Amino acid sequence: MSSMGVSSSEASEGSSEKIVINVSGVKYETYKSTLMTLPGSRLAKLVDTEKPLSEIFFDRNPEVFAHVLQYYRSGKLHCPTNLCGLLLEEEFAFWGVSGSDVEPCCWATFRQNKDTVEALAQIEPSVMEKKEEAGQNDQSSNLRAWQQKIWALFDNPYSSIAAKVIAMVSLVFILLSITALSLQLKPIYLSHNGNSSKNFILTFPVESLDALEIVCSIWFMFEFVMRAGSCPSKRHFFMNVMNIVDLLALFLLFFWWCPRDYCVKVMGFLHIMRCIRLLRIFKLMQHVFGVRVLNHALCASVTTLCTVPLVLFICTLIFGTMIYYAEVDSNDSIFTDIPSCCWWAVVTLTTVGYGDMLPTSGQGRLVCFLCVMVGVLLIILPVPIIVNNFIKFSSLVKTKYSMPRKKEKNSVDTVPMSSA
Amino acid sequence: MSSMGVSSSEASEGSSEKIVINVSGVKYETYKSTLMTLPGSRLAKLVDTEKPLSEIFFDRNPEVFAHVLQYYRSGKLHCPTNLCGLLLEEEFAFWGVSGSDVEPCCWATFRQNKDTVEALAQIEPSVMEKKEEAGQNDQSSNLRAWQQKIWALFDNPYSSIAAKVIAMVSLVFILLSITALSLQLKPIYLSHNGNSSKNFILTFPVESLDALEIVCSIWFMFEFVMRAGSCPSKRHFFMNVMNIVDLLALFLLFFWWCPRDYCVKVMGFLHIMRCIRLLRIFKLMQHVFGVRVLNHALCASVTTLCTVPLVLFICTLIFGTMIYYAEVDSNDSIFTDIPSCCWWAVVTLTTVGYGDMLPTSGQGRLVCFLCVMVGVLLIILPVPIIVNNFIKFSSLVKTKYSMPRKKEKNSVDTVPMSSA
Amino acid sequence: MSSMGVSSSEASEGSSEKIVINVSGVKYETYKSTLMTLPGSRLAKLVDTEKPLSEIFFDRNPEVFAHVLQYYRSGKLHCPTNLCGLLLEEEFAFWGVSGSDVEPCCWATFRQNKDTVEALAQIEPSVMEKKEEAGQNDQSSNLRAWQQKIWALFDNPYSSIAAKVIAMVSLVFILLSITALSLQLKPIYLSHNGNSSKNFILTFPVESLDALEIVCSIWFMFEFVMRAGSCPSKRHFFMNVMNIVDLLALFLLFFWWCPRDYCVKVMGFLHIMRCIRLLRIFKLMQHVFGVRVLNHALCASVTTLCTVPLVLFICTLIFGTMIYYAEVDSNDSIFTDIPSCCWWAVVTLTTVGYGDMLPTSGQGRLVCFLCVMVGVLLIILPVPIIVNNFIKFSSLVKTKYSMPRKKEKNSVDTVPMSSA
Amino acid sequence: MSSMGVSSSEASEGSSEKIVINVSGVKYETYKSTLMTLPGSRLAKLVDTEKPLSEIFFDRNPEVFAHVLQYYRSGKLHCPTNLCGLLLEEEFAFWGVSGSDVEPCCWATFRQNKDTVEALAQIEPSVMEKKEEAGQNDQSSNLRAWQQKIWALFDNPYSSIAAKVIAMVSLVFILLSITALSLQLKPIYLSHNGNSSKNFILTFPVESLDALEIVCSIWFMFEFVMRAGSCPSKRHFFMNVMNIVDLLALFLLFFWWCPRDYCVKVMGFLHIMRCIRLLRIFKLMQHVFGVRVLNHALCASVTTLCTVPLVLFICTLIFGTMIYYAEVDSNDSIFTDIPSCCWWAVVTLTTVGYGDMLPTSGQGRLVCFLCVMVGVLLIILPVPIIVNNFIKFSSLVKTKYSMPRKKEKNSVDTVPMSSA
Ligand SMILES: [K+]
Ligand SMILES: [K+]
Repeated sequence: MSSMGVSSSEASEGSSEKIVINVSGVKYETYKSTLMTLPGSRLAKLVDTEKPLSEIFFDRNPEVFAHVLQYYRSGKLHCPTNLCGLLLEEEFAFWGVSGSDVEPCCWATFRQNKDTVEALAQIEPSVMEKKEEAGQNDQSSNLRAWQQKIWALFDNPYSSIAAKVIAMVSLVFILLSITALSLQLKPIYLSHNGNSSKNFILTFPVESLDALEIVCSIWFMFEFVMRAGSCPSKRHFFMNVMNIVDLLALFLLFFWWCPRDYCVKVMGFLHIMRCIRLLRIFKLMQHVFGVRVLNHALCASVTTLCTVPLVLFICTLIFGTMIYYAEVDSNDSIFTDIPSCCWWAVVTLTTVGYGDMLPTSGQGRLVCFLCVMVGVLLIILPVPIIVNNFIKFSSLVKTKYSMPRKKEKNSVDTVPMSSA
Repeated sequence: MSSMGVSSSEASEGSSEKIVINVSGVKYETYKSTLMTLPGSRLAKLVDTEKPLSEIFFDRNPEVFAHVLQYYRSGKLHCPTNLCGLLLEEEFAFWGVSGSDVEPCCWATFRQNKDTVEALAQIEPSVMEKKEEAGQNDQSSNLRAWQQKIWALFDNPYSSIAAKVIAMVSLVFILLSITALSLQLKPIYLSHNGNSSKNFILTFPVESLDALEIVCSIWFMFEFVMRAGSCPSKRHFFMNVMNIVDLLALFLLFFWWCPRDYCVKVMGFLHIMRCIRLLRIFKLMQHVFGVRVLNHALCASVTTLCTVPLVLFICTLIFGTMIYYAEVDSNDSIFTDIPSCCWWAVVTLTTVGYGDMLPTSGQGRLVCFLCVMVGVLLIILPVPIIVNNFIKFSSLVKTKYSMPRKKEKNSVDTVPMSSA
Repeated sequence: MSSMGVSSSEASEGSSEKIVINVSGVKYETYKSTLMTLPGSRLAKLVDTEKPLSEIFFDRNPEVFAHVLQYYRSGKLHCPTNLCGLLLEEEFAFWGVSGSDVEPCCWATFRQNKDTVEALAQIEPSVMEKKEEAGQNDQSSNLRAWQQKIWALFDNPYSSIAAKVIAMVSLVFILLSITALSLQLKPIYLSHNGNSSKNFILTFPVESLDALEIVCSIWFMFEFVMRAGSCPSKRHFFMNVMNIVDLLALFLLFFWWCPRDYCVKVMGFLHIMRCIRLLRIFKLMQHVFGVRVLNHALCASVTTLCTVPLVLFICTLIFGTMIYYAEVDSNDSIFTDIPSCCWWAVVTLTTVGYGDMLPTSGQGRLVCFLCVMVGVLLIILPVPIIVNNFIKFSSLVKTKYSMPRKKEKNSVDTVPMSSA
Repeated sequence: MSSMGVSSSEASEGSSEKIVINVSGVKYETYKSTLMTLPGSRLAKLVDTEKPLSEIFFDRNPEVFAHVLQYYRSGKLHCPTNLCGLLLEEEFAFWGVSGSDVEPCCWATFRQNKDTVEALAQIEPSVMEKKEEAGQNDQSSNLRAWQQKIWALFDNPYSSIAAKVIAMVSLVFILLSITALSLQLKPIYLSHNGNSSKNFILTFPVESLDALEIVCSIWFMFEFVMRAGSCPSKRHFFMNVMNIVDLLALFLLFFWWCPRDYCVKVMGFLHIMRCIRLLRIFKLMQHVFGVRVLNHALCASVTTLCTVPLVLFICTLIFGTMIYYAEVDSNDSIFTDIPSCCWWAVVTLTTVGYGDMLPTSGQGRLVCFLCVMVGVLLIILPVPIIVNNFIKFSSLVKTKYSMPRKKEKNSVDTVPMSSA
């Protein structure tokens, strides 16, 4: 190829095989032999099949054609970084050049914008946009309109002021019911039937708390019925984790008046579910840019983040076993069984360090040193995963929400122009 | 469109509908039909309304026009990454092309510099620049000049050496008063009126400490009066958190001679406020590049960072409740009430791990394992938020402070030129 | 050089020494004297040796030539960021310009894609691709084909459903054997020969556990023989750490029936090795994008990450010694020897904080403050290393796996084209 | 300006005021009125002062001129991102356009490469390069050559194999002396003169340890003398922290035979200094890429990282004071004085959590919750600072060490060229 260049420069005058390709006014000159290097492409066919013209005109992108011509010359398809990969792909297709011929060095450049478009398509539109769209499409029947208004009222706090108030009231009721449940529980030690066993009594006046509980339950039931009834898609509604938690919490209420012994377990589940429902507060925060990005970043990282508990589990087993055998010889050791040792390993790996179990022998402390080193590394492992995805989604989400929603092509008419 | 291209290449010679657009010397050729694809645009109007010329001259950017022409050809508006988005917007406006027609793949490119300019505008100028500006504008009255000098002296340590000395003296007084208050307090156990209750005495000679306290208080009062008096905007002064803290600290001094029992509480507030005033030290560090960036990054992250305590609070409730019910069966458990369990959850979630409360049952330890896993993730959550903003503001602040302050256009005259 | 530019503009008309260089249709004009500034280059030789032509044609990249011409003019070789460094290098070589003349400011731009290509070459192809290649190359002998099928079956869980099942069965057997070993061990305190020493008994029925152990061992042996026998490269097989662990675990089985006292130690090693074998689970996760990136990032960071334990070790010695001398005066101190102090230093530097050893004196607490500060910094040190490599490999791995595998050049023929 | 564009397009034919500017073969056309908008610039003067020519030729960069011309047209100086800022600056200077006129949106682009060059200049060349340079410059006198060989032998482990051996021997001696000192110390409780006070005896045979100590000391003295004697710059030698530590360690040896009581203190300092000398191990690791980058990143972050201990100190005071007043009412509280409370605050802020001091009241636990939240944020604060600098220096160091060292311009001759 280098020799070709040299010969071409020597035969630079009077060569009968030169051809001029006029691409949208920009005139490129090259040898016909150069165009024959890629036999299946558009230009090779034009030059090959018919008596070739000395000048051919194309109404295509002249800048991209320069790179196509370079592919003919050097046999390597490089991409410029300043042009959009989608534009390149379109032009390449016209010239009969496959995008898969792009060199490895330029592949990332070529794909970048295509990946961006695909990633942007996966970011679902915000709540506000959804509302608008919904409003435009389904105004056919009056009933449906009402259903949607109620759904917006109970599900989307940003649809109206009333919706915000309802969301707040709901949160207050959740907090009230959690507080009530928390305060109700005070253990007393009843020494009935011989052995002193722990038992629970309701220390607060039972009536007032029961009343509060009933009020809360009625609200939760009302809210659930309204939401379930007005939801446009019942299937999506009952597949949502938060709604299942709500339903379970309501279902568990029926065990309220069952015998005391069993009641504690049921109340436990009920209690935890009410706490989980507090996560609904994030619906009120979804308009914050960083929370949205964090949400996307965490969702995208979830598979990779799963390795961390897995590695932690394996390391727990390894270090638990190691400390067991390291401390096996010390007579007064508390590392008496593998499960306890694993408990120590978890507490040490996560640098919590309760201090209830401590290695005393030299080898035990060495194992602890190793364990802590690995633990510190394990804690750091998720950082780059989330940082990388956060940086990526930060720009994607920013683009998504600054981007105008595509309208018809005649929007060009609306650009004000003074004359011409 | 591909077919158009093909037909155009076949009809490449002798087509009567070709038009030459000379943009600042660069001659682009295209078909008139191509220009008709965007009816409302400048070129379409030119071609459509009058008997079109075979060559039209425009004194505009030829590189941007290549991309506008490509929009006519392919119906997709891509942006080059090497040209400034603001330049593109200006040229697009001239050609009657709306910036909102830019494809999603190139939208980030198109917006980037506009966003940068907006972000730069939000970074307020540094203290040194403010001083200069102030000096230029308000030399009208003599009184105002004096007021400003005093304000600079007490508020901006970098305005003069005297101001730096005053800032240092102020810090020394704050540290002195904190030390005095800290040393004064030593509890003694007085067994008055029967039950042995804790009480406090001033172990140091009361006179010397009182003298120190009085000196400090006088300085603080003097400083506050000077600053409040000389501040150009009284409204801003009394809305500043640090100034309110100062005022409160001064106000609390009046409770100094109230009865002993109440005094401890008052002294507590006074004490804490004096500690908070130590944060003024950051005024002395604002010229450090990294501190400035960190400041901007933290301010920009503050809404998102608020999720972390919120999530921590909800997780505390969830895991506190979980550990309560997990350890409810073990007879000698110390997880006797929900608030205590929440305390354990906080200590474990943050990996502090005091070790005062420990799960002993298998299920309790499982809850603890989950709790620690979530805790480690929670601690990591703020990292990407701050890292992302730090990286962003690092380049913004760097640009801001390396950028020349715009002067008049005739600054061009000052460029030295030998001849021509 | 500035003066040259000025003189050239003054002598702009009628200069006899102008030359036109037609690079692929783009006509550049310059002075012959400009081309003489780089004596050894192609253009200088052309102009110098023979009677120079007024126009020279080259079938090369016109955009790159603009930058080469600028090198002649200003004596500084700058690179555009929008063109691939490999393309630049090729063209520079044609024009007789050395790539090492590129200015420091543009060096990173010039090298970037070359580095990317080199880094991409170091990322080994994924398991799936390996399989395909293997399938294509070695179908010569029937025996080899069988050997490869067995190897794929036992080594690559993604080769077939049967292979996945075998990988799962293997994991279940590992977990079973670990559980069996863990449960077997329960210490009892036998007071034989006078002093009460701790001893171990198998609390489970020995027969059933022994049977389980034998079944597991037979499976491990079978698996190892199959893998060792079918592995294409025996040398690589026995140099793999995981295989050595497997072999050792099998070897240790022979010590199973040795006397009880020694048995505990042997069982310890066996136990730990079985736990380490759990790491094989990552073979099942290698298709997850993030895990793959994390793997590459950790491998690339391993040398640098080694500094962290090293610094931790030195800091342990420094702070261990410091706390020893700080607490040497307090009579009831537990910091009685340097090794114990180093233990405290490790526990504090890593922020584990068991609380078994606590400084009580003022100077001891000051040392602790310093120790914790350094510890927090040490924990943070590995973060940027991994974050940087994760971001780097994230894009590399993405490029690698989105890249088409290079086929023959006639793949151009397969691009569908309507006409021309 | 928009109106100008319109009028120009209308007056596009037959305008007598058009001018052609031929920049290195690329012909730009514009109106003379456009060139008059920047009165002080080269083109304005050319057009203004003399009878302007219809075509002017300049042997300058045509691509940059397009942007200069755009400045004339729109009054805004934008920079393309694909061209080097230094090239732009040079060309701007020729055209009489000041770099400070660059728009804020493009300022970062314009400055980027200049900043890179400045940052590259600050990265000092590696040890290996230094050696070469030294070898080239100072072969004048024989004595100096010897001096330099000895200096390289003792100071640069990578200069020769002998130097590496000496570095290793030195490290072994340091470790030996530290071990000897550590083992020597065992406290015994001597009850002399009434009260049982702790005292130290040398538990090892004193003779053998003293011998080891003497051997180590002789080596350290020999090494120090050799290094101090051969160092090219005595001033730099005695300003280096590590050398001062060495000198102090040698000086403290003279206190070895002083009375026992004082000896412990002296041995403490000696001991700690020997530990600090272990940091020399990093000389052996300076060739690792990541360590080098980390070193630069930490040096660049050091001023900003200083804020972290400062904020920690202030937070310690604030939360120490807060917990004191929060726990002041509980009768059996251990938060009896402010310094102890500050100790608790440090232990909690850094999430070490020894568990020796625990808040028991509700308000105390609330303070603890706040304290831990702030602590977690404080620990995270240094992460972005180091990450940002690590990413920055990672590419800088990579560029620095992949960059060819600038040779003479005739290096162009060495590029092999077949013909022409
Ligand atoms: K801890
Ligand atoms: K702890």
